[in-house]
Amino acid sequence: MTTPPPISGTTRLYGIVGDPIEQVRSPAVFNAHFAERGVDAVFLPLHVGTAGIEAALAGFAALANLDGLIVTIPHKLAFAALMDEVGPHGRLVGAVNAVRQRPDGSWEGELFDGLGFVEGLCGQGIDPTGLSYLVFGAGGAGAAIAGALLNVAPARVAVTDPVPGRAEELCRKLRTSAPDLAIEPTGPGVDPSAFDVVVNATPLGMKADDPLPVDPGRLRPGMLVCEAVMKPPVTRLLHEAEKRGCRIQPGRHMLDGQFPLFLDFFGLPR
Amino acid sequence: MTTPPPISGTTRLYGIVGDPIEQVRSPAVFNAHFAERGVDAVFLPLHVGTAGIEAALAGFAALANLDGLIVTIPHKLAFAALMDEVGPHGRLVGAVNAVRQRPDGSWEGELFDGLGFVEGLCGQGIDPTGLSYLVFGAGGAGAAIAGALLNVAPARVAVTDPVPGRAEELCRKLRTSAPDLAIEPTGPGVDPSAFDVVVNATPLGMKADDPLPVDPGRLRPGMLVCEAVMKPPVTRLLHEAEKRGCRIQPGRHMLDGQFPLFLDFFGLPR
Repeated sequence: MTTPPPISGTTRLYGIVGDPIEQVRSPAVFNAHFAERGVDAVFLPLHVGTAGIEAALAGFAALANLDGLIVTIPHKLAFAALMDEVGPHGRLVGAVNAVRQRPDGSWEGELFDGLGFVEGLCGQGIDPTGLSYLVFGAGGAGAAIAGALLNVAPARVAVTDPVPGRAEELCRKLRTSAPDLAIEPTGPGVDPSAFDVVVNATPLGMKADDPLPVDPGRLRPGMLVCEAVMKPPVTRLLHEAEKRGCRIQPGRHMLDGQFPLFLDFFGLPR
Repeated sequence: MTTPPPISGTTRLYGIVGDPIEQVRSPAVFNAHFAERGVDAVFLPLHVGTAGIEAALAGFAALANLDGLIVTIPHKLAFAALMDEVGPHGRLVGAVNAVRQRPDGSWEGELFDGLGFVEGLCGQGIDPTGLSYLVFGAGGAGAAIAGALLNVAPARVAVTDPVPGRAEELCRKLRTSAPDLAIEPTGPGVDPSAFDVVVNATPLGMKADDPLPVDPGRLRPGMLVCEAVMKPPVTRLLHEAEKRGCRIQPGRHMLDGQFPLFLDFFGLPR
């Protein structure tokens, strides 16, 4: 490991805002990058409870040497509401996970979850263009992923969600952004083997006894099965998919894929 | 140099608030200490302009993993006004240079400049008890130093200031805290050689062409001449005093002397 440059009066500040904060990995990842690139900056854990986020944001605004923040659980929605401008991916979900202050003092935020998912695919050597995608879950993660897929000229994006009307509403929004693409809500009985890529964007898989979002017997060898769930690192769905000869992408790739995008957003060297 | 422990989600935050911030040395000093002691903490430069200090303090209050702040130019007076409680040395001057938040969310601050001066004497192997002191300057630095001298049972403390009435007012306040001590204002014609220790607590000496606060021809070999001025590291007064066989204490000692006091105040290991 490279030794980080010592912190001095010229060091710029970045951080991740969350509650709890003990588990965050971003400080290690960013600070190692700063050390490697010789960037005079430090990335901090910033522990802020829900009641404190408005005061904290006003305080961050008063810090002239703070250049950007990552926002994590449970603040992604609340921070979006406090921004002066939210990027297109953030608007789709009503959430942000990275914010920066403009020279005029106003704040802008964007959500990089879905874009990170796509970067994760590319990082595995997969060209996401022209593929067909089936997304399980039309909540925040599903909306972010489906929204980012609109950028890669997919052959088709289908979304399914157990909550009635939820997939329909998301697809309606998505079609507004991309009227020429094939975007459709589907029922739970949809055949996953008809798709190139299946994505679990539901929370199913976080607990060992969760039901699977999709019947693994219907997966096709060679297709790609992706997770948004990060704990456990390899979910039961991914184990089952691997057994059936599918290619898999664990949830971690979605997070790792965001790192270069955060650097770009903060104006830092990759 | 010891490698600092990597910053993670469990790392506690400390910082110095000032404007400008580029010149501050505290991050280097504290972070080296944290590395040496294996303390999971990081000390940051926090650049806050005068207009932003109220918002910044409210923001710091919302940061559950921030444990203490050092306050420097130009915020020492303004921060004192924002505290819920100010310690005795801070009250004397109406300024604080270290603040911490109590578990109930209230803020307390104290001014360690004068206490650091006394620590600096001790650090040079000088027992400050029973000595006579002549302090030039009854402004913030002079008040802090004279106030801290009350703690060491001095034989006598005299204060002089070119602004009429200023030394008198400070001595009146000092006598309220220590009615049994010999504390007196003196005129500019006072004989410095009658004292064990002479302290320059005026800004004279920061510029090369400043007049000297005291006629060096009246200094006595063997007496101690101290500076509060830190730039240049050795002022013209100290050069002249050395030439005349005086012992000297540069301004830096006053700052260095505060470091262990800051650690105590923040509940950190020395």
